[in-house]
Amino acid sequence: MTITGQNLIAGEWSGNTQGGFKAFNAQTHCAIDLGFAEATALEVNTAVNRANEAFTTYSQLSAKKRATFLRVIGAEILALGDELVETACGETGLPAMRIQGERGRTIGQLGLFADLLEAGEYQGVVEQANNDRQPLPKPDTRLGYLPLGVVGVFAASNFPLAFSTAGGDTASALAAGCPVVMKAHAAHPATAELVARAILKAIDTCELDRGVFSLIQGKNYAIATQIVTHPLVKAVGFTGSERVGMILQAQIHQRPEPIPFYGELGSINPQFIMPNKVAQDGAEIAQGLVASLMMGQGQFCTSPGVWVVVGGKDSVNYQTFVTSASEALVQQIAGVMLTPAMCASYKAAVAERKTLSGVSLLSTGLSGNEQECSASLFATDLATFAKTPLLQEEVFGFSALVVRCADTAEMMQFVTLLKGNLTASIHGLDSDLAESKVLSQRLAHKVGRLIYNQMPTGVEVCASMNHGGPFPASTNIRTTSVGSEAITRFRRPICYQNMPAELLPTLLKD
Amino acid sequence: MTITGQNLIAGEWSGNTQGGFKAFNAQTHCAIDLGFAEATALEVNTAVNRANEAFTTYSQLSAKKRATFLRVIGAEILALGDELVETACGETGLPAMRIQGERGRTIGQLGLFADLLEAGEYQGVVEQANNDRQPLPKPDTRLGYLPLGVVGVFAASNFPLAFSTAGGDTASALAAGCPVVMKAHAAHPATAELVARAILKAIDTCELDRGVFSLIQGKNYAIATQIVTHPLVKAVGFTGSERVGMILQAQIHQRPEPIPFYGELGSINPQFIMPNKVAQDGAEIAQGLVASLMMGQGQFCTSPGVWVVVGGKDSVNYQTFVTSASEALVQQIAGVMLTPAMCASYKAAVAERKTLSGVSLLSTGLSGNEQECSASLFATDLATFAKTPLLQEEVFGFSALVVRCADTAEMMQFVTLLKGNLTASIHGLDSDLAESKVLSQRLAHKVGRLIYNQMPTGVEVCASMNHGGPFPASTNIRTTSVGSEAITRFRRPICYQNMPAELLPTLLKD
Repeated sequence: MTITGQNLIAGEWSGNTQGGFKAFNAQTHCAIDLGFAEATALEVNTAVNRANEAFTTYSQLSAKKRATFLRVIGAEILALGDELVETACGETGLPAMRIQGERGRTIGQLGLFADLLEAGEYQGVVEQANNDRQPLPKPDTRLGYLPLGVVGVFAASNFPLAFSTAGGDTASALAAGCPVVMKAHAAHPATAELVARAILKAIDTCELDRGVFSLIQGKNYAIATQIVTHPLVKAVGFTGSERVGMILQAQIHQRPEPIPFYGELGSINPQFIMPNKVAQDGAEIAQGLVASLMMGQGQFCTSPGVWVVVGGKDSVNYQTFVTSASEALVQQIAGVMLTPAMCASYKAAVAERKTLSGVSLLSTGLSGNEQECSASLFATDLATFAKTPLLQEEVFGFSALVVRCADTAEMMQFVTLLKGNLTASIHGLDSDLAESKVLSQRLAHKVGRLIYNQMPTGVEVCASMNHGGPFPASTNIRTTSVGSEAITRFRRPICYQNMPAELLPTLLKD
Repeated sequence: MTITGQNLIAGEWSGNTQGGFKAFNAQTHCAIDLGFAEATALEVNTAVNRANEAFTTYSQLSAKKRATFLRVIGAEILALGDELVETACGETGLPAMRIQGERGRTIGQLGLFADLLEAGEYQGVVEQANNDRQPLPKPDTRLGYLPLGVVGVFAASNFPLAFSTAGGDTASALAAGCPVVMKAHAAHPATAELVARAILKAIDTCELDRGVFSLIQGKNYAIATQIVTHPLVKAVGFTGSERVGMILQAQIHQRPEPIPFYGELGSINPQFIMPNKVAQDGAEIAQGLVASLMMGQGQFCTSPGVWVVVGGKDSVNYQTFVTSASEALVQQIAGVMLTPAMCASYKAAVAERKTLSGVSLLSTGLSGNEQECSASLFATDLATFAKTPLLQEEVFGFSALVVRCADTAEMMQFVTLLKGNLTASIHGLDSDLAESKVLSQRLAHKVGRLIYNQMPTGVEVCASMNHGGPFPASTNIRTTSVGSEAITRFRRPICYQNMPAELLPTLLKD
């Protein structure tokens, strides 16, 4: 399929690809000979206005037809075949198996919301009138849900499919009945275009207004500002860094009308290895953590960035744990990061960490060429962690920090110091349960997902998932960006009182 | 009961009542010889810190015990007897029957959340592990909910019980497991103190940490700023004017950590009288609207402020409608407003409206003394409404505006112009249904509650209620401040993955 390099504005390909930016091959570390357009303010405005026009009909579309639309998008993504996998691998440097798995998850997410819509779930609450009630009759009241309107979505660098063009934010917004204006990530613009084509095909197959979806290409920050401050945009989904997320949040705060901003920003995902566990299985846990850290070169929001271990520095248990971790890490091959900028950021963060007082480098993975990065493992104690705020910032990539605690009391102090995170894991034995219970009760208030004896990487897409958490893990602690509940971000309640059947939504009729 | 005039800080009465402010009797229009303390920054800080300490145990309290606590609060409020009714009537100028009804609603709300907790509803979603799943096993994941932490609540001027000290925000926050720091409204500080005493008794009866509830007295705006910007405050509930709500919103936006702000700000609650309805029942509807407008001197957030009628200015239908409305209105007696400041604001808004080009005064209610206000009814046409933004601002009090539309097409234009509102009503006959359907579909996107052939005043407290709406009706369109769903404002999801039963909350165990 020939990549146009253009924006998709409500079904029309538009934009000048000569004056824009080049795609980049992360595998070969070369610019690809593909020009991409920078969307103009006019194009962004047209996309939002056409989305708002499409909202009139799309918001009225039956749940069943919305479900069909989501399934057709999934089928069209699969029909893109190997070209999609090869394009995404080239643009991100991620291996084919990972991209294939991510494609399956992306299609699965679309199917999850389709199932939800077809099952008629989340339809609301019906309470009929009671004219005999004293002292006043009870009116007929029925709680239903309406989509919010146009949703702006920002693609993530690290998931070119599952958190990008037809990813979780798009799927849940479309499921809720909201048109989407998608800002592609400049790290994988060709992948974005391919997926946008699949969505356009699905729109046409389902005979929907083409305003339902637009794809915006570009590297210019003004595009993001325009999307999040546009008066017709009624919610924003974002997955990315805390720095960029906070810029968008501040811009959204300047709007006259407050709108929800769902920013999923990052996390250090602390791993707690309980005393008896480290004594019995320290080596095994260390190896498991290294394996989890290495996934996608650590460029996962759930990557295990901090490992909290109880033990004196010279104790056998602690030494066994860090020795095993180091031995596992030094064998890990170097790899390319998603973008050259991320490679540079990772190297700078590792270099900075090396200079920190009280922080020691335990080991480094194998070296590669200058475009590649190597894994790294650091260690510190609780006192240093407490006085070094930088150690709570995410290093995006395969670097982890062991925090040594003298005892479980220090482990509890660590929890008190801890900022919000997406996840945390407790690794323990039955004989650790009493202490794990106290830990878990406190830790729960710092995370969105609390895990026992499993690694944090890998987010199950299901009805009971929560992917979010206390700030700075996310900007809206009350919502998840993964799983069925994600649909609730893009709809709102409405009460219909004393309405005749003719004026009620189908799902709220008797 | 002797009123101390002090703040209740985690069970301790404190503050200097000499340097503070005086209570005011709205009925007699005289300052009452009761001094109230202005809370100091130290007292506010102590209240928040003690609330945060109490959160550790209160958040772990079983749903059943929380339900009991809510019921005991209700019983203690009832036990305050006539003194509560007399105090609230004096401070607000509202009649005893209204206050008695509001007391019943307040106790009913507490009971609604107690029922909810006892029924084990809202407990979450359990999905067990499936080790046979391909390509990867499914982990055991369970979605539960955690309270957010300390909640700051601001009492409303117009509901001294149901939206104040133990009102809907407090009840839903306590139900969710959050301690409350309540800022009393300076218009009814003695009522607040009485209710706070009831809550303190309930805390002691249930043997809870006294930090669970504090009452802050004062008129100083710095108190509000301190509450909403305190790092340990994790959510804010507010019912009041758009002006004050926007000040608080801006302060909350300055926080490093974003927190939810649930501001219920105000509304003009448009009433649409369809062509056949006005032809058949114009006089009756007009009288019904006047009766609804007069409730509580129009100081209801759901007061019907704008009445949209189809008809030529000289048509029989329009003339019958406005003549009936005017005839009903001129007989309405004058009344005191909640505070002298609100009386002055109301008079100023009515005076300003009289000066607007294209707006005519149809009638005025009976005059009273200079401390009283009179109802007023204005009329305009769609063109004037369209070019006069002031007409979309709420006049807090018993003033309404008839907007004459030439036809239903103009009625649709009115909807396009309309900002967000808490409610709207459509008054129609079966012969109006086709046009009502088109109207209702568009109108739904502008309101939180859509009503058919009933007045907007009176909010049912039940599982299917929504009291909220698009901005500026509320700052958070996705939530309700009335009814069962209000509890969801103060809790957030958490996923427990692969947790042993010993570490799971009771409600999520097998």
